[in-house]
Amino acid sequence: MTDLLARYAAFVDDVLLPLEPLVLAHPWTAVASQIDTARQEARHRGLWAPHLPAAFGGLAMPMAEFAEVSAILGRTPIGHYACNVQAPDVGNMELLLAHGSAEQQARFLRPLAAGQIRSCFGMTEPARAGSNPVWLDTTAVRDGEAWVINGRKWFATSAEGASFCVVLAVTTPGAAKPHQRASMFIVPTDTPGYALARNIPVMGHVGAGYASHGELTFTDCRVPASAMIGAEGAGFLLAQERLGPGRVHHCMRWIGVCDRAIDLMCRYALRRETAPGEPLAYKQVVRHWIAESRAETEAARLFVRDTVAKLERVGQRAARDEISMIKYFVPSVMQKVLDRALQVHGGYGLTDATPLANWWAHERAARIYDGPDEVHKDAVAKHTLAQYLPPRG
Amino acid sequence: MTDLLARYAAFVDDVLLPLEPLVLAHPWTAVASQIDTARQEARHRGLWAPHLPAAFGGLAMPMAEFAEVSAILGRTPIGHYACNVQAPDVGNMELLLAHGSAEQQARFLRPLAAGQIRSCFGMTEPARAGSNPVWLDTTAVRDGEAWVINGRKWFATSAEGASFCVVLAVTTPGAAKPHQRASMFIVPTDTPGYALARNIPVMGHVGAGYASHGELTFTDCRVPASAMIGAEGAGFLLAQERLGPGRVHHCMRWIGVCDRAIDLMCRYALRRETAPGEPLAYKQVVRHWIAESRAETEAARLFVRDTVAKLERVGQRAARDEISMIKYFVPSVMQKVLDRALQVHGGYGLTDATPLANWWAHERAARIYDGPDEVHKDAVAKHTLAQYLPPRG
Amino acid sequence: MTDLLARYAAFVDDVLLPLEPLVLAHPWTAVASQIDTARQEARHRGLWAPHLPAAFGGLAMPMAEFAEVSAILGRTPIGHYACNVQAPDVGNMELLLAHGSAEQQARFLRPLAAGQIRSCFGMTEPARAGSNPVWLDTTAVRDGEAWVINGRKWFATSAEGASFCVVLAVTTPGAAKPHQRASMFIVPTDTPGYALARNIPVMGHVGAGYASHGELTFTDCRVPASAMIGAEGAGFLLAQERLGPGRVHHCMRWIGVCDRAIDLMCRYALRRETAPGEPLAYKQVVRHWIAESRAETEAARLFVRDTVAKLERVGQRAARDEISMIKYFVPSVMQKVLDRALQVHGGYGLTDATPLANWWAHERAARIYDGPDEVHKDAVAKHTLAQYLPPRG
Amino acid sequence: MTDLLARYAAFVDDVLLPLEPLVLAHPWTAVASQIDTARQEARHRGLWAPHLPAAFGGLAMPMAEFAEVSAILGRTPIGHYACNVQAPDVGNMELLLAHGSAEQQARFLRPLAAGQIRSCFGMTEPARAGSNPVWLDTTAVRDGEAWVINGRKWFATSAEGASFCVVLAVTTPGAAKPHQRASMFIVPTDTPGYALARNIPVMGHVGAGYASHGELTFTDCRVPASAMIGAEGAGFLLAQERLGPGRVHHCMRWIGVCDRAIDLMCRYALRRETAPGEPLAYKQVVRHWIAESRAETEAARLFVRDTVAKLERVGQRAARDEISMIKYFVPSVMQKVLDRALQVHGGYGLTDATPLANWWAHERAARIYDGPDEVHKDAVAKHTLAQYLPPRG
Repeated sequence: MTDLLARYAAFVDDVLLPLEPLVLAHPWTAVASQIDTARQEARHRGLWAPHLPAAFGGLAMPMAEFAEVSAILGRTPIGHYACNVQAPDVGNMELLLAHGSAEQQARFLRPLAAGQIRSCFGMTEPARAGSNPVWLDTTAVRDGEAWVINGRKWFATSAEGASFCVVLAVTTPGAAKPHQRASMFIVPTDTPGYALARNIPVMGHVGAGYASHGELTFTDCRVPASAMIGAEGAGFLLAQERLGPGRVHHCMRWIGVCDRAIDLMCRYALRRETAPGEPLAYKQVVRHWIAESRAETEAARLFVRDTVAKLERVGQRAARDEISMIKYFVPSVMQKVLDRALQVHGGYGLTDATPLANWWAHERAARIYDGPDEVHKDAVAKHTLAQYLPPRG
Repeated sequence: MTDLLARYAAFVDDVLLPLEPLVLAHPWTAVASQIDTARQEARHRGLWAPHLPAAFGGLAMPMAEFAEVSAILGRTPIGHYACNVQAPDVGNMELLLAHGSAEQQARFLRPLAAGQIRSCFGMTEPARAGSNPVWLDTTAVRDGEAWVINGRKWFATSAEGASFCVVLAVTTPGAAKPHQRASMFIVPTDTPGYALARNIPVMGHVGAGYASHGELTFTDCRVPASAMIGAEGAGFLLAQERLGPGRVHHCMRWIGVCDRAIDLMCRYALRRETAPGEPLAYKQVVRHWIAESRAETEAARLFVRDTVAKLERVGQRAARDEISMIKYFVPSVMQKVLDRALQVHGGYGLTDATPLANWWAHERAARIYDGPDEVHKDAVAKHTLAQYLPPRG
Repeated sequence: MTDLLARYAAFVDDVLLPLEPLVLAHPWTAVASQIDTARQEARHRGLWAPHLPAAFGGLAMPMAEFAEVSAILGRTPIGHYACNVQAPDVGNMELLLAHGSAEQQARFLRPLAAGQIRSCFGMTEPARAGSNPVWLDTTAVRDGEAWVINGRKWFATSAEGASFCVVLAVTTPGAAKPHQRASMFIVPTDTPGYALARNIPVMGHVGAGYASHGELTFTDCRVPASAMIGAEGAGFLLAQERLGPGRVHHCMRWIGVCDRAIDLMCRYALRRETAPGEPLAYKQVVRHWIAESRAETEAARLFVRDTVAKLERVGQRAARDEISMIKYFVPSVMQKVLDRALQVHGGYGLTDATPLANWWAHERAARIYDGPDEVHKDAVAKHTLAQYLPPRG
Repeated sequence: MTDLLARYAAFVDDVLLPLEPLVLAHPWTAVASQIDTARQEARHRGLWAPHLPAAFGGLAMPMAEFAEVSAILGRTPIGHYACNVQAPDVGNMELLLAHGSAEQQARFLRPLAAGQIRSCFGMTEPARAGSNPVWLDTTAVRDGEAWVINGRKWFATSAEGASFCVVLAVTTPGAAKPHQRASMFIVPTDTPGYALARNIPVMGHVGAGYASHGELTFTDCRVPASAMIGAEGAGFLLAQERLGPGRVHHCMRWIGVCDRAIDLMCRYALRRETAPGEPLAYKQVVRHWIAESRAETEAARLFVRDTVAKLERVGQRAARDEISMIKYFVPSVMQKVLDRALQVHGGYGLTDATPLANWWAHERAARIYDGPDEVHKDAVAKHTLAQYLPPRG
């Protein structure tokens, strides 16, 4: 394992970091071919799809090991993509692996695993708070052998260029429990009635290709019954099952962001002089930022590792509080570390010469997507307090 | 005065806010004509150039009143531009008003005051920490009746489209004191040897027109002796004199950013429901963010007002600690308020439907430009501790 | 006014600071005679009871001026007591001045104003959250010409040694509105049925005399009808009227705490060496703490001043949000400033050689008494959001 | 191990928590006999001295297991004392176990291990910053077969009632390296010339017995050569060796403080009503404090565990950065958690009905003793930056 991690680190250093300035300075689509070359190199070095079973061309890596890989790949904004473990595809792969029919796996999972196509995920809706995922307007109505989908989704990351979309729609509005009303469908993006209405401008960027967030419309969009993933009414549970590890995946990646920010902070502090012979690294305030960032990042890393271990040991439900806790703990650390790293870099940090500015702008979303901090804190508090209450009769 | 403030507020509400989504969604140059129409309206309503004397077409407003105007204009990213009080032009106007020769005023100040041209300011250099402003590489060497400038500047805001650049260059390297080595020049941007090398990508935006930050090169760039502002060797002192009120101007504007963020936070919290009939405004955590933001913003506003009063009463030097203090106090408040407002808005806040995302990304610079927080804290600490030391003999 | 402030400052420096170590090292009762001597000196210097009208031996100082005096007296834990403007007596004086009958003023206010007696205030009850002041268990039942009080109060500051207690009790449980159910009574502490059950140990201190917090019991405690302050049912409103300025009084004092903490921090940083010739004041982190503390304290001071001005201009009700805001803003500043000052002092700061340790322990209560932070934030949020709602029909 | 932890937890719940109010309300010496009874019970239950080898009556527990025990005992201020693992005795035991001569072990370690005597540690000096431990004034001068010690120490915790003091004194002022100048001695407290000058009042408490901090004077205090621990000049290294695990011990205990604070916060929030039927636990802000406290405490716990594992695996020197990091990370978490728990408890939290007030006042020292935060951050920054520099030739 140590050797494999070293190989991932070498891949990042040798192949991805040199590519980084190009990616930061151009729209994704303009540098797609260079990124594809890096993907080829990842395959060549045996680093492709660590999370997938060998049958799908992957390394069958346990989650605990993948966490370490992810922290390495997270050091650059293109790390995960280069090895085909990027959101939202990674979540769709896990979903199809666990719950896709043989046909779904053959048609959608296999090319996705091979990096031949991309996908997106349509859950959040513009008119409904993402913090209440069971409150959806999009519907799928049975019509003979088909389902007819109508509705609007947004923040469908990477919709531009995706070959299919996994979408959540209400199929069973009369179900007793709100979380049993929706089902999940695979919608190929060339299905009539499906449209990418626009790329949503985020932090001033309309984005392009993989690096974009789409708003989707479904207008009498008809898919066959075989497009459903899992059972009718299981959509929300599948989404939750997809989101749990997804949150952990993000946290693992953010550790890499912190590591890189500290690395950049140290290098720049040693290099940049405020007067001849007086590097920033002589400033006690800068030194303390480095020390604080290291401590917070180590604590965050250990918390993520421990959560992964628990998740693998006892399952997602029993580890839900830990997953929630890292989901708000790690981004708060990341934001502090990025803030310090930016401040050390001064004006230079605001430019695209490093990934710091990009992360500052775009990882602000970390405290919002996959459940905002507040929703996770509510959940942890509820479960914590419940332990003090008598069990319900 | 109250009436005038109401008119500024009405101008923001009626004219600028409707224009805001357009400006947030497009490059500056693409919406230049609409913005010019707003400028016309500002003139028409008697709101043009509040800081300038009547002789230059302004309202001759004292700084204390202008502070209140600025907090109103600051509520939208285009407020200051619409009334021709935008950085860096406002600083250049103040500079030329106080120190420009009659010829300089006629040729450069007058069209700038009228909004017919724009300008930029070249001080910071890529190879030198902006936190040590007396350490410059750019030189101006006397050659007969001319000065020949060589060097490189960056973060020259609004360089694209500017008609002239005010630039700081070392003319007297042998002067005993470091702050007496540089002089200040007006360089028309069509001068041979002057070039806008690139717009610096900031937070992923290369920017355009007024909304850009340029990197400039001076290659044997020759200007006449009459291009010098003030005396030889006075460049750094003039820059400081320009920067003192400039810092206060920024702080006044940031109060407006906070006011708007709170306003947006309240409106969205009341509008957005997490379940039917349950707006975000029912959440105690959101409510406390509103209450904390209001208190911090009020404290910041009073601090800025008090600093302006002191600046006008005793001058910039005697008020330097207050100026430094608001320069690090106000941005820290702004960052907290913006962070909360973003979190309340969720994914919507990350889009360009409000100015919050733009401010989150671009006002991060507030803690860096015009002296990073750390430089100002160093200065305040030095002066504070000096009061406890015996005077030097 | 400037001259008077200088005289208060001289009194603190010359008389109170030398007394401070004695007071910090002993129970209040053990140093009562030395403190009384200081009170004599305050009278002698014309500094006694600045808040009271001349008819009651005071200086008739407007609140805005008193705020400046209070910031000076607040620099030492005995400042307010020395000039007879200490809580809870100052609140009781203001109450009796505004609402006491002639008899009440003659019998209770006059000796209190003269510093011949002390008093206490019984509002909070152990079984009821202080954050909901209209929910009280203590009752007063009319029995002929008398009222018979039963109940339990706690955190009655300075109950030990007090000559009378102002107590809030439910007299009118059937009143339609909760805040019209209670009335206010003066209970001399030698009344049968009144007892000081104990001094509550706070932060490990059981306290003594003025510096104590009592738990009181009222057991068939009978007072005449003339003991009521104001009208029946007006108790809660009187308490609110007493608490509004009371909160401002505390805030004004806390500014003094901050000023002193900064002063101590600077002196110690210059004096304490970590190596020969290297005082703590050379450490950038310490310097930044000084700079941050100064900025936050100035902002807090201006906020308090502005609130006082508004309170005097438009009254307590119209200024209620400002009063609430300073009530949570200023203690948060104070806690940060004290924390930094303690850290600079190291082990020395934990001792009673300075008032820092005492303040750290005992001013933690600032965020709790007179309404915890959370209650005030709730109130400000409510009023802020209400401005966005249509008026109720 | 799980079973043993359960037995420690039961001991805390059944024996120590009932004793806690008594201990919080009285000087240590007044409740010494009750505490001794609890110690008897600890022995009886097989919980005595988990850190010591069986030969000294202990459980020979590895540090990783002891960390878990310590988090349990840390839930109450008397936990560690009850099992004879309290500072400073635990550090002295470890020191004598590793470096004491057979005679020293027999005479001092054995009764200490048995709980028959107590000890103290004299390192910090009032005239010298504790943050620079090699700068000492106390000297020991060789005089024939004896050493004659002169100097002054303070913050010698538990000096009152101690049978011996381990003291650091300069014996070799001419040594080339500052850290080779001091040696370590055992001084029985009945040695002529040794005196406990006073108990230092800390946070207003002069303390008593074990719960005190002494100032010690050494006046021609003569001890035999056999009183030296280890070699001449090794004092500072021994002190460091003692302090490394000592810091970890503190951190392990502070996790227990956090656990208890969260436990108290939950219980009180569920119990305390702000209106009939509305417990504090319904307040979202309180709930989020619980959730944040849990996350931060878990991260801190994992960080301590990981540091212990590294310390045991690679030794103190290789783990020095981790030890430094937890030494500033864990107290910062503890302070935040205690602050929230206090705020939830309101006035009740300030009383001695819970240990929260005691911890708030006395654990503020956690960020100061055994190296203030700033010293540890300096060290971590230095080592981190050094990794980027070329090795010295």
